[in-house]
Amino acid sequence: MFRLYDYLESGNGYKVRLLLTQLGIPFDRVELDIVKGETRTPDFLAKNPNGRIPVLEVAPGEFLAESNAILFYLAEGTPLLPSDRWQRAQVLQWMGFEQYSHEPNIATSRFWISHQLLTPERRAQLPQKQALGYAALDVMEKHLTECTFFVGGRYSIADIALYAYTHVAHEGEFDLSRYPYIRAWLERVRLQPRHIPITHGER
Amino acid sequence: MFRLYDYLESGNGYKVRLLLTQLGIPFDRVELDIVKGETRTPDFLAKNPNGRIPVLEVAPGEFLAESNAILFYLAEGTPLLPSDRWQRAQVLQWMGFEQYSHEPNIATSRFWISHQLLTPERRAQLPQKQALGYAALDVMEKHLTECTFFVGGRYSIADIALYAYTHVAHEGEFDLSRYPYIRAWLERVRLQPRHIPITHGER
Repeated sequence: MFRLYDYLESGNGYKVRLLLTQLGIPFDRVELDIVKGETRTPDFLAKNPNGRIPVLEVAPGEFLAESNAILFYLAEGTPLLPSDRWQRAQVLQWMGFEQYSHEPNIATSRFWISHQLLTPERRAQLPQKQALGYAALDVMEKHLTECTFFVGGRYSIADIALYAYTHVAHEGEFDLSRYPYIRAWLERVRLQPRHIPITHGER
Repeated sequence: MFRLYDYLESGNGYKVRLLLTQLGIPFDRVELDIVKGETRTPDFLAKNPNGRIPVLEVAPGEFLAESNAILFYLAEGTPLLPSDRWQRAQVLQWMGFEQYSHEPNIATSRFWISHQLLTPERRAQLPQKQALGYAALDVMEKHLTECTFFVGGRYSIADIALYAYTHVAHEGEFDLSRYPYIRAWLERVRLQPRHIPITHGER
């Protein structure tokens, strides 16, 4: 059985939990508290030298890190990843956008604020993260004026990747009230079969 | 013919130039100066609403952004992307690592330093970027003690993605002298057929 090394509050972990659940793949979870440094122990670094969750153990001793790589791996051959080469490229484009332009701003703001980790250095970086986070939301809003889902007109792992931190952006003090298309898309994602909330760890 | 919207100094652009050249795919280049804001014009934002190069125009009006998505798209079906599902997942893992843990620290330091863009705010962020950049290099060095290339024992787009900013890390004031395995791997990449340097834009 797959084993997911995870942290319940993590949107990156949630992406994998959500996909596994929607695909009906059984798994067990190992909860690691990143705030307490549980992903930086020698034992965990032997699983992922980069010291981050999520990590999927697909067989004993076979580990895969990086949330979007895990999504792609699990979704191959399922309706949640298009088989068309151009659409697959667009899925990867949106997942790259998520990890580079969205997550470091929106997820990091949320983490700092919700865990009261705002040191003076981080507080000084917050305005830039807010500006870049809103810029990413602007890109999403523009795209969603033309599409119901991010790629190919149907729900895919691109939507899962972007949903994870967008739906909790308010916890990073991002105001989604000015984004009607994003809010409608969030609702479409939430209504997909077998959807689970981010707070739902155990199966 | 493919058209690449590019910026010669960009490692992200270089990844695509290098792969296209090694695959023998003809392309033309449109050089945009990101320092002068040429990727934030209305004309370019119509091509990539996220305002970043590289962008590959695969057919008139059909644009693909995000360097690693472009690499994956171009390499499908070639020896530079494994066909094995587990190895493909590892390629995506290393490309995710590159964009999240490596590029924002090493490439950003290089860009700020080489263009003399070190405002006081950025100067205050530099020590953290140095620490995180060295942490990424440590992860690479550890992996390369066991492997000649990043995935499956042979040269792939994972190597191209990581080579792009590692081989110019010194321009961001990263010292590679303490990384013998990385230096040997850089040399192996440099010796691949049809290799071009980052300064080589035109074909």
